[in-house]
Amino acid sequence: MSTFGTHFRVTTFGESHCKGVGCVIDGCPPGLALTEDDIQPQLTRRRPGQSNLTTPRDEKDRVTILSGTEFGHTLGTPIGLTVPNQDQRPHDYTETDLFPRPSHADWTYLLKYGLKASSGGGRASARETIGRVAAGAVAEKFLKEAYGTEFIAFVSSVGKVAMPFIEEQSETGVPSEEFVEMLSTVTREQIDAEATRCPDKEISKKMTQRIIDAKEANDSIGGTVTCVIRNVPTGLGEPCFDKLEAKLAHAMLSIPATKAFEIGSGFGGTQVPGHLHNDAWVQKTGRKGQKFLGTKTNFSGGIQGGISNGENIYFRIGFKSPATISQEQQTTSYGGVEGVLATRGRHDPCVVPRATPIVEAMAALVIMDAVMIQLARHGAASLLPPMPETPLRPAPFIMSVPGGQAIKVDETSKPKTE
Amino acid sequence: MSTFGTHFRVTTFGESHCKGVGCVIDGCPPGLALTEDDIQPQLTRRRPGQSNLTTPRDEKDRVTILSGTEFGHTLGTPIGLTVPNQDQRPHDYTETDLFPRPSHADWTYLLKYGLKASSGGGRASARETIGRVAAGAVAEKFLKEAYGTEFIAFVSSVGKVAMPFIEEQSETGVPSEEFVEMLSTVTREQIDAEATRCPDKEISKKMTQRIIDAKEANDSIGGTVTCVIRNVPTGLGEPCFDKLEAKLAHAMLSIPATKAFEIGSGFGGTQVPGHLHNDAWVQKTGRKGQKFLGTKTNFSGGIQGGISNGENIYFRIGFKSPATISQEQQTTSYGGVEGVLATRGRHDPCVVPRATPIVEAMAALVIMDAVMIQLARHGAASLLPPMPETPLRPAPFIMSVPGGQAIKVDETSKPKTE
Amino acid sequence: MSTFGTHFRVTTFGESHCKGVGCVIDGCPPGLALTEDDIQPQLTRRRPGQSNLTTPRDEKDRVTILSGTEFGHTLGTPIGLTVPNQDQRPHDYTETDLFPRPSHADWTYLLKYGLKASSGGGRASARETIGRVAAGAVAEKFLKEAYGTEFIAFVSSVGKVAMPFIEEQSETGVPSEEFVEMLSTVTREQIDAEATRCPDKEISKKMTQRIIDAKEANDSIGGTVTCVIRNVPTGLGEPCFDKLEAKLAHAMLSIPATKAFEIGSGFGGTQVPGHLHNDAWVQKTGRKGQKFLGTKTNFSGGIQGGISNGENIYFRIGFKSPATISQEQQTTSYGGVEGVLATRGRHDPCVVPRATPIVEAMAALVIMDAVMIQLARHGAASLLPPMPETPLRPAPFIMSVPGGQAIKVDETSKPKTE
Amino acid sequence: MSTFGTHFRVTTFGESHCKGVGCVIDGCPPGLALTEDDIQPQLTRRRPGQSNLTTPRDEKDRVTILSGTEFGHTLGTPIGLTVPNQDQRPHDYTETDLFPRPSHADWTYLLKYGLKASSGGGRASARETIGRVAAGAVAEKFLKEAYGTEFIAFVSSVGKVAMPFIEEQSETGVPSEEFVEMLSTVTREQIDAEATRCPDKEISKKMTQRIIDAKEANDSIGGTVTCVIRNVPTGLGEPCFDKLEAKLAHAMLSIPATKAFEIGSGFGGTQVPGHLHNDAWVQKTGRKGQKFLGTKTNFSGGIQGGISNGENIYFRIGFKSPATISQEQQTTSYGGVEGVLATRGRHDPCVVPRATPIVEAMAALVIMDAVMIQLARHGAASLLPPMPETPLRPAPFIMSVPGGQAIKVDETSKPKTE
Repeated sequence: MSTFGTHFRVTTFGESHCKGVGCVIDGCPPGLALTEDDIQPQLTRRRPGQSNLTTPRDEKDRVTILSGTEFGHTLGTPIGLTVPNQDQRPHDYTETDLFPRPSHADWTYLLKYGLKASSGGGRASARETIGRVAAGAVAEKFLKEAYGTEFIAFVSSVGKVAMPFIEEQSETGVPSEEFVEMLSTVTREQIDAEATRCPDKEISKKMTQRIIDAKEANDSIGGTVTCVIRNVPTGLGEPCFDKLEAKLAHAMLSIPATKAFEIGSGFGGTQVPGHLHNDAWVQKTGRKGQKFLGTKTNFSGGIQGGISNGENIYFRIGFKSPATISQEQQTTSYGGVEGVLATRGRHDPCVVPRATPIVEAMAALVIMDAVMIQLARHGAASLLPPMPETPLRPAPFIMSVPGGQAIKVDETSKPKTE
Repeated sequence: MSTFGTHFRVTTFGESHCKGVGCVIDGCPPGLALTEDDIQPQLTRRRPGQSNLTTPRDEKDRVTILSGTEFGHTLGTPIGLTVPNQDQRPHDYTETDLFPRPSHADWTYLLKYGLKASSGGGRASARETIGRVAAGAVAEKFLKEAYGTEFIAFVSSVGKVAMPFIEEQSETGVPSEEFVEMLSTVTREQIDAEATRCPDKEISKKMTQRIIDAKEANDSIGGTVTCVIRNVPTGLGEPCFDKLEAKLAHAMLSIPATKAFEIGSGFGGTQVPGHLHNDAWVQKTGRKGQKFLGTKTNFSGGIQGGISNGENIYFRIGFKSPATISQEQQTTSYGGVEGVLATRGRHDPCVVPRATPIVEAMAALVIMDAVMIQLARHGAASLLPPMPETPLRPAPFIMSVPGGQAIKVDETSKPKTE
Repeated sequence: MSTFGTHFRVTTFGESHCKGVGCVIDGCPPGLALTEDDIQPQLTRRRPGQSNLTTPRDEKDRVTILSGTEFGHTLGTPIGLTVPNQDQRPHDYTETDLFPRPSHADWTYLLKYGLKASSGGGRASARETIGRVAAGAVAEKFLKEAYGTEFIAFVSSVGKVAMPFIEEQSETGVPSEEFVEMLSTVTREQIDAEATRCPDKEISKKMTQRIIDAKEANDSIGGTVTCVIRNVPTGLGEPCFDKLEAKLAHAMLSIPATKAFEIGSGFGGTQVPGHLHNDAWVQKTGRKGQKFLGTKTNFSGGIQGGISNGENIYFRIGFKSPATISQEQQTTSYGGVEGVLATRGRHDPCVVPRATPIVEAMAALVIMDAVMIQLARHGAASLLPPMPETPLRPAPFIMSVPGGQAIKVDETSKPKTE
Repeated sequence: MSTFGTHFRVTTFGESHCKGVGCVIDGCPPGLALTEDDIQPQLTRRRPGQSNLTTPRDEKDRVTILSGTEFGHTLGTPIGLTVPNQDQRPHDYTETDLFPRPSHADWTYLLKYGLKASSGGGRASARETIGRVAAGAVAEKFLKEAYGTEFIAFVSSVGKVAMPFIEEQSETGVPSEEFVEMLSTVTREQIDAEATRCPDKEISKKMTQRIIDAKEANDSIGGTVTCVIRNVPTGLGEPCFDKLEAKLAHAMLSIPATKAFEIGSGFGGTQVPGHLHNDAWVQKTGRKGQKFLGTKTNFSGGIQGGISNGENIYFRIGFKSPATISQEQQTTSYGGVEGVLATRGRHDPCVVPRATPIVEAMAALVIMDAVMIQLARHGAASLLPPMPETPLRPAPFIMSVPGGQAIKVDETSKPKTE
């Protein structure tokens, strides 16, 4: 429903036309330095009115921490957060009292709840995502401090204007080497330098034009967001039903307007034969000189068998063209009468630029929860007496980011079958 | 972890080389006619050794109901199900004692649990899916009886051999009209007539050849499965985090070897401008002559704002090429030594034909759980006294499959803004 | 953690010395008439400063609904509620910086979170219960409208001053007939007429004296609260782990200062032989003349096998003497040094009078959640085709309050064994 | 429903008259030495037919591990366990086809599920507890190895024959010093030496007579079980709703036939003024000479603010007289006709002796789950950089059994208020 996560758990509330939105974060580890200043930047990146590409609905979106911190540190108790709704203009929506907006949630909310709120599908509003972004900023801060984990989402396509993701000419259909390498280096600063949030300046220019075209036509356009997670601890993800990619897909498709998710080589990878698609193991050298097993290629996207292997996790999400457009649309009223709907109001012609902090937030929530579950298992297993020599434990059991700490196989406890 | 669902909840257990696999289904409504004969067919469709396209590992996979039924009907208490592991050949896997298989779960299971089971990533085995298929068959039977709901999954591509899903020549990039129409009529019988489980005989022939090519090359190949759900009750899916497509994505990406999910127009739809992509509302006529609101096109895939609207739900899942191939692979051992791995054993060159009942099962589990949650809400709301005349309730609150029962707007309680 | 319930789910936040406390109620059925006026009365009954028996800490505790309602009705979306903390006096607590208060949560919060908040065990504060009471008021309103369910909690003992619950002279040790009969008639008005919240005026007078004695001695005293739930729908409670009494016990022992719970005949009943303790079945006549099966006695407390049988549910909760007293106490500091602690501040000498709305709230939350789970099951089972004639279904399957609707056994579908 | 726990999670299935009962344990830490031999002893202690005090229903109750272990160690994957039902005699119950047994679950199961299984309230059967006891044995083994934690339950009363728990003559009404001291030393061997499972030989003799009296009268009698948990790690229990005593109460009242729960001083303690009831802090010395804070008395029962403080946890559970008795009972049939029921079959005249391993199992499940949740928090907090000097962290943050490791306050980071 409106709660996400098991250990690090966020519960959101609020819709477009009520007094405020917010969330409760439960299970945040105690002792994390945290003030509103850690949360506000991502809310500001999310909020409307940032550029001529987004809706002019200008809300300040100032967050207040109500509980759960003292002396600028988390107490371990629930963190209540609110953001008031300052800029309510319910009258913009009056025409929708007659017509359910096509491809919007007006009709389905009526089907689900038997009620027609003034905002139509109120919780389907992008405004609901404020609580997610706030909670994600807290998770992201923890993971940065604990593991150096980084979450970077950017716009990889707008309509047909796309960054070169797949080598289309090749036989392979998998992510190009340049794209995968770029994932290791791209920064949030590069991304924010463009109003489109696409780090490739040339393509960003074309994307900008595509969005302006849509805006001027009172139309809208979709796109994709790619997200990379770097410095991920190994061992995250719970077989069988809570595989890490399953949780990421769940999280991403819970963002409004999303229609598609792929991880690593994704749909393109289904066309590549196994001998080319398999990621061979290679020994790599970490920052401190330690040796660890990594993969030569990374078509797996950093997850194998539902569990993180320490390589970069990357995935792509498809966002449809926003349903609310100012163009006249031939459709049918709640009462079954055909007619023409032209929605007024403030709407994004393209949501992907503003969606990037939401994607980062949801990714951080998934990783944070998975980290705490694995810490529980790892902590418990570490309390047990040492195992006798069996083929079962060929290596010490540690939980880390591989580049930062060695995962060393103990050659002396080799399996009997050697 | 190993439990899926809130009301209709399945917990699976078992891996490849233990005594047996199975599941516990908790929360099944009482009074459903159920014997092993209702479950076995889907297990048989899932099991290996069905054709020359699948692994010769020939397990009988006979299911036994241990509890929860009497006189051939469910009691409402937990249904325990087991399937013994008959055909264990652990020695097939001995070489993997030295090398973690590339793109398999061997290494990540070691990272997660600190242990190396004889089967490597035991729970990452396709054998784990038996419990899911069994539970899904129970959910499917309930939904068939209660709503006439149908779950039909088929193979839509193998490697580059694909059914014409998207009109590639067109500007739109959305599912073709023929494909969407086919979704309304395709039957499980048509699908099972082909070993590939692709209902298009011509394309199936090419797929067969593609799989045989992979097999003869000791290689493997991926593909996609498309699933359609027909006669879906409206109002399913829980905003915000448990949107119906989010739960479906979660469920599908928890199936081994999956890498991608898209619903409705999916990634292709991100390229289509809003005025073309929006699904206009039209008045339709149900089986019994009743009028209801439906959509003209169905790029939404039957879900809007995370809630089912009564149209067909359809989605596509990408399965990678199986990681376990008999070809020699240059890789690195657990101990960090480079070497060559050639995996023996029985392995599918392509998993998608056998994956179709698993997809159907996971879809049925998602819908079943969503139905029960909505029944709780609807049942509770129905107990309240009638609301006064406000714009809030323009229509009676019912829960149904739209084609079977009218969702009628009461014109007399029209919103004040008209 | 800070979330309670599955369907009707409350998440609370806030401690004594932060900006505010509150909660999010998720899963409330849509269409319930609800404004702050429905919630405030129970908050006012809970708040300090009501009489000379409670702490003078005078907070207004005005609740604000932030989201989830429109036109005075619930939308089905999450209801955000906040109550600001107006009367913070953190300096009252400075002495506790040196000494963990005996039998308080100061030390255990430090053990759990590794941190010492200025309020010591902040979330262990009675102030945390505001969110519970607010959420409980919403649940109570729904249940009143849907089933006529009533929740009545009162003080049954203060120290050794007790209402005659068990016939101590008798051999039986079970609740006396008069007490059980009183449970059917006692009203909230009778209870609120006494500052002690004990409906027996004579005993209330003695209780008042006992509390004043404690207050004057800078001491504190414990007591018990008895709660009765009337007009409970049948069939509530989930075997095996979520039996209705197990959920009630869980809910009650999550209230600060509670140490004991008993349902029906409770500890006293363990001394009564089965032939006296068993509640014989009798045919009763409901309000509308319908016949239904009820019990002659009600030592079961309205729950059998973990499931409500339609009779009154009643239970008793033990609250210890408040740990915070102004008397000097010989104890040991955080640093391990023996010393004397005299806590200043505003503290209740006895919590049971103010605890009654908290008990009612937690009871309402348990029943509400159980109702929705059973509505899901019942709604689903009702969709199935009629069962063939077997001994399995001797009666129609309905969900109701027995006094209001007949639960009739269909004599024609009698078990074959008759 | 039939699942208990979040991290260490057991799902049970099975009733009296099906093919078998069992459970799935999910989330068990990997690397725990485990075979059937670790589980069987507690099952044997639970099973009927152990003495002339229990039902002669003689089932072997041999457990089989189906999955989740290899080389005698847990893999971290779900552990499937089954116990076949060997001794089914459904005909014993035929008379109950006409009459719902008084105070049994026959009628409420019919109300809940709309069905009448041949065993009446099938899952309300004591046989359902086999899965709990098996899972509890696994949890107990882990906790023993990790922390030396011990779970000891014994019979503290049968009918009015009781061990001297409360000093009834005294003014205090709290547990007597001797009783509390005995809790530190009593062993499972002492308890099993008596068929009653009461460690006091004199009282055990009287209890035996009381049970035999009940048996000979075709009657039944109730009793109480007291359980102590020793060497409990500190910091367990989740405010606010999952306080440790709330989870214990939930767990205990989910055991069939339970009616009451009290922790520490319990109901008696409500009569004791705060200055006598508060547990003063004292510095104690652990096994290895380390100093730590403990309490002088232990009326809190080892839990304060819902969190374990390292002292012994002890609590008492009331079990009613078994409902199924062979005496004739005047009651009413399913069809509403008055009549006489005399139940045949094999039934315990008193359940408390056999209940002791069930109590231990449920206690172990609660503690195990709480340990893993706290390990997740503690592990996460430990990854954060050191906090600056504030009054927030006066002591290092560790998780341990106090007697085994020092919890030392760092005097140099003393609160500013000193």
